[in-house]
Amino acid sequence: MPMEEGRSRVVIEGVAPEIDCGRYPIKRVVGDKIGVEADVFTDGHDSLSCVLLYRPAGADRWTKTAMAALVNDRWRGEFRVTELGEYQYTLEAWVDRFKTWRRDFAKRVDAGQDVAVDLLIGADLIEATIERAGADAPQLTRFGDLLRSGGHEALQAAQSDELTDLMSRHAGRLFVTKYKRELGVWVDRMKARFSTWYEFFPRSFGTDGQHGTFKDAEETLPYVARMGFDVLYLPPIHPIGRSFRKGRNNTAAAGPGDPGSPWAIGAEEGGHKAIHPQLGTLDDFRRLVDRARQHGIEIGTDIAFQCSPDHPYVKEHPEWFRRRPDGTIQYAENPPKNYQDIYPFDFETEHWHELWEELLSIVRYWIDQGIRIFRVDNPHTKPFPFWEWLIGEVRRDYPETIFLAEAFTRPKVMYRLAKLGFSQSYNYFPWRNTKSELMAYFTELTRTEVGEFFGANLWPNTPDILPEALQIGGRPTFMARLILAATLGASYGIYGPAYELCVNQPLEIGREEYRDSEKYEIKQWDLNRPDSLSSLIARVNAIRHENPALQSNADLRFLHTDNEEIIAYTKIADDQSNQILTVVNLDPHYVQSGWLDLPLEDLKLDPRHPYQLHDLLSDNRYLWQGPRGYVELNPRTVPAHIFRIRRKVRTEQDFDYYL
Amino acid sequence: MPMEEGRSRVVIEGVAPEIDCGRYPIKRVVGDKIGVEADVFTDGHDSLSCVLLYRPAGADRWTKTAMAALVNDRWRGEFRVTELGEYQYTLEAWVDRFKTWRRDFAKRVDAGQDVAVDLLIGADLIEATIERAGADAPQLTRFGDLLRSGGHEALQAAQSDELTDLMSRHAGRLFVTKYKRELGVWVDRMKARFSTWYEFFPRSFGTDGQHGTFKDAEETLPYVARMGFDVLYLPPIHPIGRSFRKGRNNTAAAGPGDPGSPWAIGAEEGGHKAIHPQLGTLDDFRRLVDRARQHGIEIGTDIAFQCSPDHPYVKEHPEWFRRRPDGTIQYAENPPKNYQDIYPFDFETEHWHELWEELLSIVRYWIDQGIRIFRVDNPHTKPFPFWEWLIGEVRRDYPETIFLAEAFTRPKVMYRLAKLGFSQSYNYFPWRNTKSELMAYFTELTRTEVGEFFGANLWPNTPDILPEALQIGGRPTFMARLILAATLGASYGIYGPAYELCVNQPLEIGREEYRDSEKYEIKQWDLNRPDSLSSLIARVNAIRHENPALQSNADLRFLHTDNEEIIAYTKIADDQSNQILTVVNLDPHYVQSGWLDLPLEDLKLDPRHPYQLHDLLSDNRYLWQGPRGYVELNPRTVPAHIFRIRRKVRTEQDFDYYL
Repeated sequence: MPMEEGRSRVVIEGVAPEIDCGRYPIKRVVGDKIGVEADVFTDGHDSLSCVLLYRPAGADRWTKTAMAALVNDRWRGEFRVTELGEYQYTLEAWVDRFKTWRRDFAKRVDAGQDVAVDLLIGADLIEATIERAGADAPQLTRFGDLLRSGGHEALQAAQSDELTDLMSRHAGRLFVTKYKRELGVWVDRMKARFSTWYEFFPRSFGTDGQHGTFKDAEETLPYVARMGFDVLYLPPIHPIGRSFRKGRNNTAAAGPGDPGSPWAIGAEEGGHKAIHPQLGTLDDFRRLVDRARQHGIEIGTDIAFQCSPDHPYVKEHPEWFRRRPDGTIQYAENPPKNYQDIYPFDFETEHWHELWEELLSIVRYWIDQGIRIFRVDNPHTKPFPFWEWLIGEVRRDYPETIFLAEAFTRPKVMYRLAKLGFSQSYNYFPWRNTKSELMAYFTELTRTEVGEFFGANLWPNTPDILPEALQIGGRPTFMARLILAATLGASYGIYGPAYELCVNQPLEIGREEYRDSEKYEIKQWDLNRPDSLSSLIARVNAIRHENPALQSNADLRFLHTDNEEIIAYTKIADDQSNQILTVVNLDPHYVQSGWLDLPLEDLKLDPRHPYQLHDLLSDNRYLWQGPRGYVELNPRTVPAHIFRIRRKVRTEQDFDYYL
Repeated sequence: MPMEEGRSRVVIEGVAPEIDCGRYPIKRVVGDKIGVEADVFTDGHDSLSCVLLYRPAGADRWTKTAMAALVNDRWRGEFRVTELGEYQYTLEAWVDRFKTWRRDFAKRVDAGQDVAVDLLIGADLIEATIERAGADAPQLTRFGDLLRSGGHEALQAAQSDELTDLMSRHAGRLFVTKYKRELGVWVDRMKARFSTWYEFFPRSFGTDGQHGTFKDAEETLPYVARMGFDVLYLPPIHPIGRSFRKGRNNTAAAGPGDPGSPWAIGAEEGGHKAIHPQLGTLDDFRRLVDRARQHGIEIGTDIAFQCSPDHPYVKEHPEWFRRRPDGTIQYAENPPKNYQDIYPFDFETEHWHELWEELLSIVRYWIDQGIRIFRVDNPHTKPFPFWEWLIGEVRRDYPETIFLAEAFTRPKVMYRLAKLGFSQSYNYFPWRNTKSELMAYFTELTRTEVGEFFGANLWPNTPDILPEALQIGGRPTFMARLILAATLGASYGIYGPAYELCVNQPLEIGREEYRDSEKYEIKQWDLNRPDSLSSLIARVNAIRHENPALQSNADLRFLHTDNEEIIAYTKIADDQSNQILTVVNLDPHYVQSGWLDLPLEDLKLDPRHPYQLHDLLSDNRYLWQGPRGYVELNPRTVPAHIFRIRRKVRTEQDFDYYL
């Protein structure tokens, strides 16, 4: 005989969202409404009540909100998260005797049956409720007496909304079933979802080919701000190792003037908490952070947990590295390739506790300098438990911190990093180019469970990746890929000025590295070149800021088009006030045209009235009616429309009669 | 800093099968091979090893078997269950340093690199293994010395299969990750999956309209056995209540000669442990059970946990029933309908412990009489925790017991009952008639997670259900629905002789109850009517017994046909030795013909050679080649083919050159 209560008859199962049986929280941003569904049912025909419970993690009390039955034993409730940090939610349900009685009573009355005994049963249920009804007790007593009195007044009282409300307020919750897990929500700030990133190498902004400084970077802020970026991510700003330093185009031996890769961290001058002397001082850096903020830009820095052979750790903490039988330290390798300029940490060292604490102290150090956005280099080559711990530790004190995972790796590894805490992640966007590739991938990212925890940040290029499509397609593809990134993803970023200047020469044919990559040399950029895409980028980013639909991925839907080179999709703001339809010609060579099918019902468009498509890129307007419309896009001008859909709201021929 | 080992770097997730986070076991039968898959991965590029652990529940030791990597970080392993009862399985994985070293070593050798230091690293790994290598220690010592010697012999030794095997056998399992759940398998006997049921009312087999007895039922056993049924299920055999007894056609007042419904259990003569005096004695019943066994038939009885007002429990245990304010006992109701002849138990009574124990004692009583198959009436009107407990208690001592849930209820309720222990369940088959309905429903039952726990038992009719399709379609539909049930379901049953005699008069148009239902009166059946379907049924059941493909639902696949009235599907035996293709004309009125597409690859058929379709119903043979074939079926003769697919195995024109 089970010791537990055998009379808890309600089942709660199939709760969604729920990631890996509650092992990980779902992710949301402050202000989000969270819909929770579950299968809730019992034996027999009794009526149920079901509540959703939620609270900021650690709060003493749950807030409860009623759930409503949908169809097929599915129930739904909602709550809103209003603070940064962790929330919890769970469910409770019970057989509701009064609700059951009330429903059956109505059926009996409708069938003209004698309900004398039923009135007494109802009165008993009321009586059992009185003791916990507080101020409502007298009212309930009155109802109880009425029901016992029988007659016409009793019938009315039994079926009154007031009695139903009172009984629901003080419901018995007899033999309540509590869902066996408390599920988590991690609540980020809005920027974790909606952010527009620009990456540049400060050292390339010096005058006359000199090594650029933080002060030079300050001068570049207005340019970045004009384009509408709100995160400026800097590659590592630390001293660069000299041993085995890489030369131009990643050659094994650096020339005397070669600056080295910023990711070869650590030299005599210091390690992960030091600043490269040629960039400036810590004060210069803090000033850059402040100035950026004045331009509406947040500086993000790089966390690359690896060392050059010259890093102070190598001497101070040899126990954090793996030693080879010949006494040398194990360098990075991906056999048969060897990377002698990089020493990875040995996360299997007996001293892993100390190593973890030191790495955390690096993040804390930069937090103390005002940084709250970190782009993490290759997180998939360090243990998952380490990241889960580190991000947890940081966020306990600084829940506003955003971590972007540079996890260009296998899908399950990428998703695991997102589950354990990374707010955003690089992803396969650079290699999803055709219509079917894009539709399949973004359906996976936004319309499956992945959307509950994975925050995609779309980069059409990075210093490491010049995708084949950009090499081949040139300027039309640079435009198209930027618009795709900016409209498919609430977060996206570019590595510039290489992007806006359409740099597309690979190291060699068949490779995706840049020729004369900025990773290994100091570049000079002509930001004012007339063919720069900076104005288009500024326009696109302004559209993103003005249209809430583009600030989330929750409601991305692809439309059918009859041309394989034309992709079209809608995004709709939560409150339906803003609807964006993006149409892109993926072909960099030819004008493409075709018909697309609009889901009028989803868009709440009346098939009997025309609606307006306002192209926010060109400012042209089109009048459509019904579900099909014609588009034609020339890749040489602008290969896309970003339409705001405007519904007619007045019948008069006013000037602005569309909303 | 977490207290747990931060160096356990491997992740195990996405384990399948796993029902509701391991809350419920999957189900299999003795002899089954169970395939287990999981996502297993770690950070970086290290090689993994992964093992599947399994044991009969409660055994001290796990048996371990290696899992193999598929693609995309998915791993798979298998084990076989050989005993009745519960098994457990779980997984372990670890970063395998030697495997990693071995893989990288080969790459370095291929690239012509200096591997002197790598040989020393390998030797160190071997040395660390020696202490746990037992009898293999000297062998490993020899390998270690060889590797340290350097030179050509060392290269060969390092890459030898012998060394790989030795190191794998004594693998370090450093920082092993154990999957956090132990998952269950409930292993039934084969009959839980593959069973052929016949239901009849013994009282209708008396001579000259007398109330039939168990002795009369004995006489009928050869008839049932000839048709090939292996379970004979009897409606309740207990004394029938007199108060509020229902008359013919479910009328409220019974006439003096009306026998009452067997489901109104309990009278002066006794309750659930008593036998209806007119059926015979307990000895007669035990003799029927024995005789049936001699015919290869197992008797199944009914568990209907409800009481007539005359049941002894009502006086002896009034605390097990709910009392109304007027002092009467609450009868069954589904407002506005009232069922005064039935008292449900009050499972919310304070005395629920005693009630549960008593109900269990009823099952135990019939187990003592030799019964191991129970058809449970309306289990969805009693609490889920009760059934989980009761089935668990019974199976601890009698794991061979089979419970069939008569759960004609909502899908999630039906599935929950299956998860908590019912071996088989009634289901929506009676109301799935068109091709698209059948395909959608049986895809859900067999190709989703449902197949892991839900054992469908298909009944084209029951004493309560005469589906509209049978009323309308007559004899052709009786043939088609029987063949569908017998080939779509490894378990199926009919309520006879009403079925084989094609009884199809409803109580009234638009109702699914039988007119003059056997539930309320004693019938007389002419079993020898020339239009009886008994020969067809015998043929179909013989085919089921001879063809293993039809004894499981695991590999049901629907084929494309170009005619909406023709449904076609294959079943393939586990070892591929038996392949059955069933084709049914769903139209009772017209000859239908069409082309169907065979998946040659799944069937391992060579498109370059003909193959034979041997119709096991008609014994006709057809020679086909390639993926398309023509069928034509006349509903007036037999509306189906049950083809055994025979591949040509010899090139000579021998007599039996097909297998």
